[in-house]
This record gives sequence, structure tokens and C-alpha cells, in this order.
Amino acid sequence: MPILSPEQQAEIEQQRAQTTPTRRATVPALEEILYEAKPVLDHGFVRVIDYMGDDGAIVQAARVSYGKGTKKVSEDAGLIKYLMRHWHSTPFEMCEIKYHVKLPIFVARQWIRHRTANVNEYSARYSILDKEFYIPQPEHVAAQSTENHQGRGAVLPSDQAHRVLDLLREDAERCYRNYQQMMNLDEAGQVADEDQSGLARELARMNLTLNYYTQWYWKTDLHNLMHFLRLRADHHAQFEIRAYADTMMESFKRWVPATYAAFAEYRLGAAHVSATGLAIIRRMIKGEKVTQENSGLSKREWAELMETLGDAAARQAA
Amino acid sequence: MPILSPEQQAEIEQQRAQTTPTRRATVPALEEILYEAKPVLDHGFVRVIDYMGDDGAIVQAARVSYGKGTKKVSEDAGLIKYLMRHWHSTPFEMCEIKYHVKLPIFVARQWIRHRTANVNEYSARYSILDKEFYIPQPEHVAAQSTENHQGRGAVLPSDQAHRVLDLLREDAERCYRNYQQMMNLDEAGQVADEDQSGLARELARMNLTLNYYTQWYWKTDLHNLMHFLRLRADHHAQFEIRAYADTMMESFKRWVPATYAAFAEYRLGAAHVSATGLAIIRRMIKGEKVTQENSGLSKREWAELMETLGDAAARQAA
Amino acid sequence: MPILSPEQQAEIEQQRAQTTPTRRATVPALEEILYEAKPVLDHGFVRVIDYMGDDGAIVQAARVSYGKGTKKVSEDAGLIKYLMRHWHSTPFEMCEIKYHVKLPIFVARQWIRHRTANVNEYSARYSILDKEFYIPQPEHVAAQSTENHQGRGAVLPSDQAHRVLDLLREDAERCYRNYQQMMNLDEAGQVADEDQSGLARELARMNLTLNYYTQWYWKTDLHNLMHFLRLRADHHAQFEIRAYADTMMESFKRWVPATYAAFAEYRLGAAHVSATGLAIIRRMIKGEKVTQENSGLSKREWAELMETLGDAAARQAA
Amino acid sequence: MPILSPEQQAEIEQQRAQTTPTRRATVPALEEILYEAKPVLDHGFVRVIDYMGDDGAIVQAARVSYGKGTKKVSEDAGLIKYLMRHWHSTPFEMCEIKYHVKLPIFVARQWIRHRTANVNEYSARYSILDKEFYIPQPEHVAAQSTENHQGRGAVLPSDQAHRVLDLLREDAERCYRNYQQMMNLDEAGQVADEDQSGLARELARMNLTLNYYTQWYWKTDLHNLMHFLRLRADHHAQFEIRAYADTMMESFKRWVPATYAAFAEYRLGAAHVSATGLAIIRRMIKGEKVTQENSGLSKREWAELMETLGDAAARQAA
Repeated sequence: MPILSPEQQAEIEQQRAQTTPTRRATVPALEEILYEAKPVLDHGFVRVIDYMGDDGAIVQAARVSYGKGTKKVSEDAGLIKYLMRHWHSTPFEMCEIKYHVKLPIFVARQWIRHRTANVNEYSARYSILDKEFYIPQPEHVAAQSTENHQGRGAVLPSDQAHRVLDLLREDAERCYRNYQQMMNLDEAGQVADEDQSGLARELARMNLTLNYYTQWYWKTDLHNLMHFLRLRADHHAQFEIRAYADTMMESFKRWVPATYAAFAEYRLGAAHVSATGLAIIRRMIKGEKVTQENSGLSKREWAELMETLGDAAARQAA
Repeated sequence: MPILSPEQQAEIEQQRAQTTPTRRATVPALEEILYEAKPVLDHGFVRVIDYMGDDGAIVQAARVSYGKGTKKVSEDAGLIKYLMRHWHSTPFEMCEIKYHVKLPIFVARQWIRHRTANVNEYSARYSILDKEFYIPQPEHVAAQSTENHQGRGAVLPSDQAHRVLDLLREDAERCYRNYQQMMNLDEAGQVADEDQSGLARELARMNLTLNYYTQWYWKTDLHNLMHFLRLRADHHAQFEIRAYADTMMESFKRWVPATYAAFAEYRLGAAHVSATGLAIIRRMIKGEKVTQENSGLSKREWAELMETLGDAAARQAA
Repeated sequence: MPILSPEQQAEIEQQRAQTTPTRRATVPALEEILYEAKPVLDHGFVRVIDYMGDDGAIVQAARVSYGKGTKKVSEDAGLIKYLMRHWHSTPFEMCEIKYHVKLPIFVARQWIRHRTANVNEYSARYSILDKEFYIPQPEHVAAQSTENHQGRGAVLPSDQAHRVLDLLREDAERCYRNYQQMMNLDEAGQVADEDQSGLARELARMNLTLNYYTQWYWKTDLHNLMHFLRLRADHHAQFEIRAYADTMMESFKRWVPATYAAFAEYRLGAAHVSATGLAIIRRMIKGEKVTQENSGLSKREWAELMETLGDAAARQAA
Repeated sequence: MPILSPEQQAEIEQQRAQTTPTRRATVPALEEILYEAKPVLDHGFVRVIDYMGDDGAIVQAARVSYGKGTKKVSEDAGLIKYLMRHWHSTPFEMCEIKYHVKLPIFVARQWIRHRTANVNEYSARYSILDKEFYIPQPEHVAAQSTENHQGRGAVLPSDQAHRVLDLLREDAERCYRNYQQMMNLDEAGQVADEDQSGLARELARMNLTLNYYTQWYWKTDLHNLMHFLRLRADHHAQFEIRAYADTMMESFKRWVPATYAAFAEYRLGAAHVSATGLAIIRRMIKGEKVTQENSGLSKREWAELMETLGDAAARQAA
């Protein structure tokens, strides 16, 4: 099933067809996908709706300059790396991006915890929600992790997974039918009984399950976008929100490639090492054999450090 | 049914039983109810967990003073009125309050839109939610408003209301049973089949309906609390969140009575009058007969102005 | 003296000369002045550097729409008025604007109190500040107000004003000479003595007076811009920051004219009337003669109400 | 010269002398110094004015608990370490602290860049600033760094340092005399000429230099306090703001000792290592000889990494 109705698709196409000249900084690679709905999960999407600034705008703000700020592309990239490395956040705040996102309510509840952003959500007090709910792919139907209190472990056996999916689907469908019935609507969404009033939408909505889709306009600056992506594209994040973060990462790359490169070097691929962890690394570099027992770290922290240091350390510790 | 378990009640009593001396500003009227769970809706509550500052702290901050700031209570009240009248927000930000709130998820979704606050929510990725869901009282089961796209109108006829309540209850209960079943739990919450894994909590929770209760610690400063109360204790707010705001209003009164008095005068009982509205008032005071037709206002705005001005204006316009 | 150097002017002209096509919402009236430095005070300026969104973007976000959001311009204006009247702030947060501002340090210190904005300031730890300081026009050299503890009263007599201006100028110039001397610079800004080091800039800067100019990039959303303008274009604001707010008001009008119209009606020209003030208005409309003595208001609040209600009320009360 | 007047000292003593019982979490070690002015620089100070919460409150919020949250002190410390290590910020936001700070204006300008805090500053529009300005100790009068564009290098030779200090003192004193004279005040702060008006304070203040002291009430939550301290107690921060951060660090230790321990381990003593840096560490642990030339790092980044890894790495690389 397509994620957009033909009318929605037409509206988007119409908007994409128009261009006007501007004196502002423009990013062709991002313009290319502007307004397009990139599918996420079974009914969701992410669309870039607007943006302000580019890599050059970061440099321009850092220098408080009168003109473009850009000297050479390579110098700009160098300054951006410097700013990222030294955690200078304000120049990155000078770029802004706006998304239109369609997402399950339980994902929206995690997402909204990022407070430094602007949000306009579709109102279920005012409007009726569509019959669209999230059902995971069978390969994502996993058991509670036995190691991590807030995560998933192994995928469930196929038959158990399908029973889960059936339950999810049946409950979502029944709840929607009753949502409509309470509001005096038939299944086609038309008034069922002309002599009756329907329940207020603000009340009826409470009968929907948390996998129903909502949508919002969400706008943030580049610094806060990176903070969001760092947390939500991480493997500790729930798969469903990670799917959104991964899609947004693509638009981030198109928008500010030099910033993305610095982000990959100093955030995504980097690690934060504790005081004790640093002492261990120093001992290992000297050639000393360090084990969890003599490391001063708990088993869990030790395992995390080994993961950070990779094979080399594991071999040395073995 | 009591809103707290005996264990919860005992924990609260134990905490209430202990006092220690402090040099900080203390408010006996608020201490009196500290930690107590004030019931809201059918299973919810609001508890004041901690607070910082009192009316005197506002004065002290406004004066950047070395000592208590307080001269006479009446002088303090006068300064607080002045600050409120002139929208000086920073002195009010110097007081802070922390609540523990139990509330339906659909209410939590409205509440969280207030971004200038600190929140720790009970995690349904980590823990299993209790079987507690909101069912309105029959007298609150109202039809969609015909005037206001996002509000309630008349109460539904009793039989229709009861059908609604039955549907809400049945769907909430079935969804919970299936929530447990997916996680391989029986109705008592015990592992159902020792040979199976249960679905991860972060996935299972999506089968719950939006009237399930969640809970959080929520902390904000007095300025932002007043902003919250002004919007959420207002008659435009949905009844369910208003019930929370009304309960919090009581703790606000106990905490900073002089600020509450100023809030009542300059916010709750006050009105914002548009440029055109002011011109109309001037004409009316001169004795001119103003009607909606010659007012320059739309019907809706005219109605709102008449409501603000009360009988007097309505009579004069009649 | 021009506020920009020829090099700065050339950089700006070069940037203005380039246009690229974009699919984003574009506002020709704002593009017209993009990057231009609008003079403020004696050496300051305000330049619009970038913007995101237009009146249509507010409507689009409020409707969470797939396409442009705009139906007819008149419908959009109606919705914008509705949003403004009912204090819906989030759709206005969907538009963003970025300024480059040159301003005296004492003005910057007031301005920075608006926290919901992004700022990159010219660093006097890193760079040397130019010899540019603010000297008021003689007609703005006013005495301390005798009524308002934090305001200006009558303009000072011409000879006294000129003595003030002379002192300001002499102290600013001497402090700058010594700032240079400490850093081992001559008056042309060249190293004075090759055999000496100069004092660190981060220390030397503390010898400058608060009327020295600094500059920054400042970015905020439309909601917070309106909040800033409402407070800083107000007659209670200090003249010097008001001069900036007035200039920014012009760019606001060009950018989102429908929003500006709503802002004029519901904010700039509107008034907030207290509970007691409303009761007085009701009595006046009934034809009752209300005086300060029987009003329940202090002299000061009464005077403010009379100012709000204009001649009509004053005559009736007389 | 004492940093407080006898009246100020008496006001503080009076406030310290009073205790009242409270049901709130109380921290005796912090109560001990409550309201006391800890001297910073030559005329500045930091005073803790109020606080909310303790280590237990963090645990309580993380668990959304009904009672104290605390089981054993050691379990609490373990959870706090876990939260710190995994960058869970919201539980730390549940504690709040309020300071009264007296500080030079140029320090205040750096400090105010931390936006997530509440501030009430002494108003120089409303009041007259005292004749108190910062003069560094001769051993802090340093040259511009030749390596770091925004820092200090070697201490200046004694005679040059004393010339600097003389200039700073003379200019600050002259500017203050003229500040008074413009406001029609004599040196004792009395009206000089009864027949004249004085210049408005909001204008006169611009004649003061940036080393004049101001003061404010500043309130923030523990998460943002740690962010502030991490940046401002760092050796990259300017010495003068670091002096304040160091003093605040002492109150942080007294207030929430378990949090401080976790902060020392995972923030103060920890390091952030880039992707390339991690690869280098892996090579070094394997015993490979890595030099700046074959490291893939710039000289500057290499030097920073060597500093992080300490002698061990330097020796191996040599």
C-alpha cells in the first residue's frame, strides 16, 4: 500500500514543481529531495519541508562575517572540524531544518522528550485519525532482552511472532471500529445515525492503541538535530525510532556534508572513555596485561571498554 | 478503590513522618500536604514532592538582596503585584516545585507540550504498566461540540453514554489481557509458560490504549507553573487535564499566597483586549450604542468581547 | 562616517548579487533587503542574513498539511488572526530569522536576556575590538526620571548635555588608547615594541567602557521575535534597544505581513486589563461615574487604566 | 578590604541563625555553608542561597518512586554512576540550586551564555553601581598566547605587569568619578548641585569599564550546573570565570557527593576520543609504533591525544 494518497502525492508534486530565485544559501543536494516523503516503517515517512543555512553558514556565524564567510571549501571543513572537536555548539545552531513526520504514537512519545525543538502535531481533538497503525515485520518481533532491562533480545519463533502480530492487528482494528462507533460513524467514516450525536473526538481518541500513527511538523537547529541523531540512531535506541533517525541521517548528509564528516569522526565513531578506562588504556599501551579483575571496572563496564577498543585489547587481555 | 496500594501509602507515610531542620525558606502550609497523593480522575493523583522558595524568595531575587528580602508582608505583596502586572517573569522563576503525577497517557501527551520543565516518566520499556485505565464519569461523556471544532458539547443521553463506557472498558481490558499474553504472562502477572520467552516490553506496550495511566516526576519553576495553570485550568482546556490543573492550583495557593493573589487579579480574572476591542469600549463609555454590525468585529470576536464585558455591555448593546 | 568599511560593503554587495533557484518558500519583499545593513544609533546596524518560511508556512504547520497549506490569502490571514488571538504559539515557531547586529555592549547585555535564541558573538578574547563607541545625540541625553525609577525624564540643558557627551567621549577614547597600549599596539594598531609581548586580549578588553560596540549573529523563531519586539519596541524599553527593535519591526513587516497585521491588532495595539480594571469598565459602560478613589485601584494603576481607555474614560471620570 | 559591608554580613548572619523543620530532603553539609559568601577574585563572591533535592532525589526520580527511593547508599551510588555513564540527564535535572554571585561584567558576559538557567541581575538602570572593579593579581597578568588565539601565555615581566595594572586602575577610577559627576553626584555619592538634574542611570552606566562588578541571583538544575562546571572549570576557560567555577565545585561536592564522584570519573577525568584516535589506540595496544606522521592526525590533534594518553603513549611513540 502506498504511504500517500493520490491527493497528497499531487500536492507534494505541485510544490516540488515550483522554484523561485533566492539570495539565501541554497543546497542543491537537499533541494533535490525537498518535500519528498521517504518511507519509514509500514505507514510512516519523513519529509524535509524547509531548511536554513549550509556548511558555509556555520563558518560565517563562527566568524561573525560580513560576506559569505567561505574562503576555500577545505578551510571551511577545517574550521567545522575544529568547532565539532571542541564542542562549540553555537555556530551549528545557526542552521535550521524542518521535517514533516508520520510516526506511531509510542515513537512520538519518545521523540517529544527532545525539548529544544518546535512541534505542531495533528490534533485528534479537532480531527479524526486515519485507520493506520504500526505492525512490526516478523523479524523485528523480539523477546525481552535478558541482559538489558530496556531492550530486545532474540527474535521470537515464527509461530509465536505471528500470534503476536495477529493480536496486535486484531486489537488495533477492533479499537478503531469502536472509535468510529462511539463517534457515531460507520466504517466508511460517514455519520451512522442522523438522529444521534457522536462522542467528542477528544474523548473517543483514548480508545486507540499506542501503535496508531500521528504526524507532526518538527523543526530544530543543526546542533540539536545532531544530538537527536546521536541518541536515536544509536543501537541502544528502540528499533522503531532508530528507523526514523536513520532516514533523517540521509538528509543531514545531503544538507551539510562537511558537518556530517566531522560528526562521523568526533561523535558517531568516537568514544567517551572514563578516568579508569584511560588508566587501563595507558597500562595496555605500556604492554601491561590488564584483566577485568585487575582493571577496577565492573564486568559490564569492562565489556563496554573492550567493545570500544576492539580486537586489539581483547587479544591483549586474553 | 483506593488510588494507592498499602505499600505505597506506607512509603508516603514514612516519608511524611520525618522532619529535619533547615536554614532554607520553608512554607508550613505546603509542608502540611507534602508527599500526600491528591486524587484526580478515577486512578490518578498529584503529589507535591519538593519545593524551593516562597513569596519572600521572589522579593529577595527581585532585589538581589543579601538577607531575607522581606521587609513587611504588605510591602512584599505590593512588589509581587507590581512584578506580575508588568510581566517581570525572572523573579518568579526563582521558585521551583516538583510533582509526582499519575495521569492517562492522552493527558500526558498534552501536558508534555510544556517544554520548560523537567520530566522523568515511568518507563514501559523497562517495566510493565499496571492495569489501570481511565473511564470517564457518565456526566462527562459529551458529544462533539457543534460550535467549537476542538471541544465538547452537550452530555450524551444516558444509554448512549453507557454504551460508550462499555466499549471503552471492554477494549481497555482486552488490550491489557493481550498485552500480558504477548509478554508470556498470565492474568496474575506471572510467567505463563516457562519454556517460552515473552515479547519485549517496548513492543508489547503498543497494544495499550491511550487511556492507560502512566506516571512521572515533573518539576518546573513558578513562572512556568503559572503559564501551565493559566492554559490548563482554562475552560478551553480538555476537562481531564483541567482536573489536574485545578488540583495543582490548590498547592500553588498554599505555597505562595501573595503570588496567587496577584495571579488571580492580573491573569485568571483579567482579559486581553484587542485594539478594535479597546476602541469599542471607548465608544461604549462615551455612551455610544455599539452593535456587532458597527463594531468592526466578527460575530465570534464580538461574542467573546461581550462575555468579557458582562451584562453591562450586553445591555448597552441590546 | 559610513557604518561599513568599503571591504565590508563590497562583501555584502557580492552576496546580494547572487541568486539561486529554490523550492522553498520565498518572500520577495524580504529578499529585497537581504544582507543590507540598516543603520541604528551612531555606529550600529541590523542586517537580515537568512530566513525560513513565510505567512503560508504558519498555516501549513497549523494544518500539518502535505502541500502549500495556502488556499486563499484571505483564508490564511483569517487563520493567522485566529492563532494570534488564541495565543497559539507553535505555528509561529515554524518560521525562523537570522540577523547580524552591531550594537553597544550595554544594549547587548539587555538583549541577551532573551534566552530562546541562538547567538554567535564576536570574540574579544580572540580578536581586537574596533575603536567604535556609542555617543548619544544631545536630544537623547536625559535626566533620571523622577517618576520611574528605571527610566529617563526631561532632556538635560544643552550645556550640561554637552559636558556629559564630552566626558563619555574622552573616557572612551582614553580607555581605547590604553587598551591598545596594554596590548603593545600603537594607535594604528601595529606592534609598538617588537621586543615586548602584549597583554592577553581576554584581559585587555576589560578596560573598555560599556558603550563600545560588539556584534553578533542572532537567530530566533517568529514567536520569540514577536515576544522580543513586544517588550523592546515598547516605550518602557530603553531608547537604545528600542532603536534596534524598531528597525527589526520593518523587516518583520516585509517578511510576514499577515502575521504583522494580527500582531498589531492583538498585541501592539491591545491591552491587558486586570480583574479590577474590567469591573471598572463595566461600571463605566453602565454610565456610573468611577473615580480613582472609588475604583479600588492605586493611583498608578488608575493612571495606567485611564491611558489605556483614552479620553473617553478620562472625561467620564472627570 | 572585606568583601561584605557590616550590614550585609549582619543580614547574612541573621538568616543563617534561623532554622525551621522541613519534611523535604535536607543536606547538612550544604546547610553548613548556606548563605555564606565565599570570596572569589578581589571583590567577588559566591553564596549558595537555596537548593532542592539531594543524591537520593535523583534515584527517586529515576525510579519514579513513592517513597524515599533510597535503599542503601551503595545501591544509590551505583545507580547514579549508571545514569552518569549513560548520559541520562533527566534525573539530574530533578535537583536545583540557587546562587548569589558577585562578578565582573566581562565574566558575567561569558556566564550568561548558559541559557538554561534563571537569572535576576542587579539593575544599573534602577540603581547606582558600587565603586568596585576587578584588578588582577600581578601573577595573572599574562601575554597573549602565541599558540592559542584565545588564551594567555607567559606572565608579563613585573614592570610591564605593573604598568598594566596602573592603567586599569586609573581608567576604572576616572570612569567612576565621571559616572558620578554625570549623575550630579559628588564622590561621597551625594547630590552635588541641588539645582541640577543628574543624567539618567541607564545612560551614565555606559561610562563604566567592563571590569566593574555586577551581581545576580542565578539558579539552575544539577544537570546544567555540571555542564557549566565542565566547561568553566576547564583549563581552556578564562582564569577569571574558572575561579568562580572552582568555588562552585566545592558546593557541588557538599551537596551531592555520590553525583560528584560519578562526575569526576565520567566527566572531569574522562576523555572523548575521536574515531581516528581510537584506531591509533588500537594500534598502540597491539604494540605498533605510531607517530604523528603515520597517525592520520594533525599535529595539534596528535598533541591533544598524547596529552590524554600520558607518558605511556609518548614513550611508545618516541
